[in-house]
Amino acid sequence: MDRTEISSLGEFAFIDRLTKEIKLNHKSSKVGIGDDAAVIEQETGFDSLLTTDLFLEGVHFDLVYTPLKHLGYKCLVATIADIYAMNGEPKQVSVSIGLSARFSVEDIEELYAGIELAGSIYGVDIVAGDTSASQTGLLISMSCLGVVKTDEACLRSGAKPTDLICCTGDLGAAYMGLALLEREKKVFAGETEAFEAKGIKPTSMIDISDGLASELLHICKSSKVGVRIYEERLPIDYETAQMAEELELNTTTVALNGGDDYEFLFTLPLGLMDKAKEIEGLRFIGHITEESLGASLVTRDGSEISLKAQGWK
Amino acid sequence: MDRTEISSLGEFAFIDRLTKEIKLNHKSSKVGIGDDAAVIEQETGFDSLLTTDLFLEGVHFDLVYTPLKHLGYKCLVATIADIYAMNGEPKQVSVSIGLSARFSVEDIEELYAGIELAGSIYGVDIVAGDTSASQTGLLISMSCLGVVKTDEACLRSGAKPTDLICCTGDLGAAYMGLALLEREKKVFAGETEAFEAKGIKPTSMIDISDGLASELLHICKSSKVGVRIYEERLPIDYETAQMAEELELNTTTVALNGGDDYEFLFTLPLGLMDKAKEIEGLRFIGHITEESLGASLVTRDGSEISLKAQGWK
Repeated sequence: MDRTEISSLGEFAFIDRLTKEIKLNHKSSKVGIGDDAAVIEQETGFDSLLTTDLFLEGVHFDLVYTPLKHLGYKCLVATIADIYAMNGEPKQVSVSIGLSARFSVEDIEELYAGIELAGSIYGVDIVAGDTSASQTGLLISMSCLGVVKTDEACLRSGAKPTDLICCTGDLGAAYMGLALLEREKKVFAGETEAFEAKGIKPTSMIDISDGLASELLHICKSSKVGVRIYEERLPIDYETAQMAEELELNTTTVALNGGDDYEFLFTLPLGLMDKAKEIEGLRFIGHITEESLGASLVTRDGSEISLKAQGWK
Repeated sequence: MDRTEISSLGEFAFIDRLTKEIKLNHKSSKVGIGDDAAVIEQETGFDSLLTTDLFLEGVHFDLVYTPLKHLGYKCLVATIADIYAMNGEPKQVSVSIGLSARFSVEDIEELYAGIELAGSIYGVDIVAGDTSASQTGLLISMSCLGVVKTDEACLRSGAKPTDLICCTGDLGAAYMGLALLEREKKVFAGETEAFEAKGIKPTSMIDISDGLASELLHICKSSKVGVRIYEERLPIDYETAQMAEELELNTTTVALNGGDDYEFLFTLPLGLMDKAKEIEGLRFIGHITEESLGASLVTRDGSEISLKAQGWK
């Protein structure tokens, strides 16, 4: 691959080169990259959703294992997942990148190619950005603007005792290093559309980025409830379980604490169970309780273990 | 000052502590920090504006000279300036922070206090955020959502030959180290309100963050025009000029290439000159020309010098 030094272009020509391929798909994206701010048409009957995510080299990703195109793809998907977790539709994204002299123009074009690929698959426009020199490697910050029908946003605070606790897909694969680009390509937009088609609105919803245990505790705190989940019901696929065994890791620990799975956790009124069962790939892992009962995992032998939050220190 | 290690709280308690003082001022800010995304009510008759800015330790700021509270204040002001430069009103901001173990809980509370102070002065709600460990000092990323009346956004692309080139305030003070918090406190929201009161809509507008010369070239490129500005008309205050002299710097160079001035550059149809003269603090520094005439500075002795862009390499 050619290596063009960014210094040979200078900031403005570099930005022009990165952004010249960007297409705007939404009619609502009136002005994209190239002015002080993007201009986005507002639709009546909708609320806006705004979310932001930070990705730092050496903390969130290691370029030894992550090709730049894959990284760009993954960052965009992780950012828009928060909009889906609100029952919304992601529409526009802003992308800020800090980069050191180690990176060439072609490197950052690869990164952008991944961002744009994910944007085109999920129908998200890249409309604003900032690019800066960094003394310390690569960092990426993305913010996503989405829409949701007025008052249809699905918060973390709506779970009620007796609600079923559900999640999509399998857990722990990312933690085991088995989450490949193909896997992440799965359009989880499809899940929220399936809810809408069946007239199902979750009482609370969150995306699983910090691990199942942490996310359950977020719902408990916001909704002022407790949870019981069942070890035997945790969804772990065969490959993940096999690898955990090889590495002498407990599969339950992997499913509870592995992050980055790009799956959703949500709660549903008990009465919607039969309807929800018709949606492919949903798992029912437990139920909501009164707050005083706390948050715990019921093990295969019937004992209860308290759930603990992860997160960085 | 007390020093509480962030590790003693853990991520989630740390975020709770940082965000517990945040108040939401706009009725449109329905859900703020604490869910997957903020929920913001849309208003009919308006377009949304989205902008993003990145601030890196060692590149954009040096904590030896910048108290954390001042830094937080300054980052928010720099971010929302882009919304004002679109003729819009900033409403909601998301704040992402990466920080190394060098920083205590109290340090980051100071930073947040500055962000919130600026938010309350400019009437901007802090509605979303991400906080992460960083291996390499402090980094801040902010995105701002604003509104503008439908089709009233003031782009960089509307300047026409014979338009007057105007800017607010004085230039070069920040470059000379004379830009103090007091100075930056000036509510530049007032300038855009003054335009509205007089029924003046600039044909193009941009905020001066990379220096006057760079911003003029941005307008030239977007509007496909040329510019002539006049050295004798560049607004430099006495203190700045005096300091430039002491340091043996050319004051014109300082005015053309100093950034961070939090002033606006805009163009107006020639016919609006008399009306615009009634607005305090506006300077008329030159006029727009045909594109083929290029971008240049007319010096005091009448010769022409081509303008050159700055920006990082």
